[in-house]
Amino acid sequence: MAQNVEEFLSIAVDAAKKAGEVIREEFYKIKHVKHKGQVDLVTETDKACEDLIFNHLKQHFPNHKFIGEETTAACGAIELTEEPTWIVDPVDGTTNFVHGFPFVCVSIGLTIGKVPKVGVVCNPIMDELFTGIDGKGAFLNGKPIQVSSQSALLKSLLATEVGYERDNLTVDSFTNSINTLLYRVRSLRMVGSSALDLCGIACGRLDLFYQFDFGGPWDVAAGAVIVKEAGGLLFDPSGDDFDITSRRIAASNPHLKDAFIEALQESE
Amino acid sequence: MAQNVEEFLSIAVDAAKKAGEVIREEFYKIKHVKHKGQVDLVTETDKACEDLIFNHLKQHFPNHKFIGEETTAACGAIELTEEPTWIVDPVDGTTNFVHGFPFVCVSIGLTIGKVPKVGVVCNPIMDELFTGIDGKGAFLNGKPIQVSSQSALLKSLLATEVGYERDNLTVDSFTNSINTLLYRVRSLRMVGSSALDLCGIACGRLDLFYQFDFGGPWDVAAGAVIVKEAGGLLFDPSGDDFDITSRRIAASNPHLKDAFIEALQESE
Repeated sequence: MAQNVEEFLSIAVDAAKKAGEVIREEFYKIKHVKHKGQVDLVTETDKACEDLIFNHLKQHFPNHKFIGEETTAACGAIELTEEPTWIVDPVDGTTNFVHGFPFVCVSIGLTIGKVPKVGVVCNPIMDELFTGIDGKGAFLNGKPIQVSSQSALLKSLLATEVGYERDNLTVDSFTNSINTLLYRVRSLRMVGSSALDLCGIACGRLDLFYQFDFGGPWDVAAGAVIVKEAGGLLFDPSGDDFDITSRRIAASNPHLKDAFIEALQESE
Repeated sequence: MAQNVEEFLSIAVDAAKKAGEVIREEFYKIKHVKHKGQVDLVTETDKACEDLIFNHLKQHFPNHKFIGEETTAACGAIELTEEPTWIVDPVDGTTNFVHGFPFVCVSIGLTIGKVPKVGVVCNPIMDELFTGIDGKGAFLNGKPIQVSSQSALLKSLLATEVGYERDNLTVDSFTNSINTLLYRVRSLRMVGSSALDLCGIACGRLDLFYQFDFGGPWDVAAGAVIVKEAGGLLFDPSGDDFDITSRRIAASNPHLKDAFIEALQESE
């Protein structure tokens, strides 16, 4: 099994790099495409990368299950089973991709028994490859990474994302929570990719991350392994266990978890 | 004069690259320094880089004036005269520097007759050098850049920064303005460096930027030239003219300016 999981990672890295090449090429083109065409190009790149990744993985693992942002968004319900399941976001940070903002990545996670076991997050623009295998550590471009050692909430760098919903309830709850949290932390970052936020926690660039309404498990399946293997914790913003099929997540190092949950509860 | 200004730029670029080397070296060390020592290292790096930049510039321009974040923060009032004046932020994005978050830069601007004429913003971590000379264009790593062609506010990517103040008035006004603006734009980014936000506008990665309480003219003097030379506009968030000695700024491409000001006014 141990050897298998490493083989899973190596094949997922190949798939992520191939898709990353496509993304990098389109990234520098897209600003010059007229706006209607831009939407098509995003959809095309998303679809092309998902096909490329699924085909690559299916060649090696014909019996595994597959959940992709593109496919699943098209088909409706997500069914996560006990089977080995690849959960893929071919382009995380689509808005950044359209605008040429460099926080764009491929996210490939593998769950076995519903538990994330392998994670690959590849940012082809900034040339950063984050990887993690359950029980075997987390890496950035091959070098071991770990979460920050920060233990004071007031000195912590917090990240969140605004998501796509713009109803009053979502927007108010978003700005209210920021309003409360700003008194409790050092500063706030929003870069537009949940997968890269999780990798930011894993390598200690960020201390705290939470988000209430991301797209689906493809945004966080890979990052979840990477955070855990870097010594971090994932949990529901309420303090409950993290549920990969929910659309709520929080992450931090172990020192900050309790104070962060308390601050999040005040902010709700 | 034309030749002089190009010489000014070239010498400023040398100074920025030298300081950038120091920043890059410390950037990868700082996470491993104990917290008390961390603060010292920030102060030291800031001071060392400012000295290095000022010494380099003074060698070539002994009669110019100099305003630096470090020096001025120590001495009090800023006096901007008609004389050629170098306005320097040795490390913009100090919080990012401490946390190892890659949006960190050196910012060197030159005003003549109080008008920004030359700008250099060097991000040594992401290896990006933004330059601009009044009347001669703006460049990223030597390639011409221009602002986005976006004309719809609803499709625009907005950036702002939270700053350091945490009194109720500042925090409430910050989150209230975000609350209003989120209905009017596509999404929101906060990366923690005003100089790099301005460069983001200049190269079209961002469409809209505003900030109410940045540190001082050193945060925006270089970016101001780069934005203008990339075809962008700088203005006060109220719609008045941009005043480099105020601590308020907004920037966008020409298509978005009016709609952005309207949205900003609603949000105040």
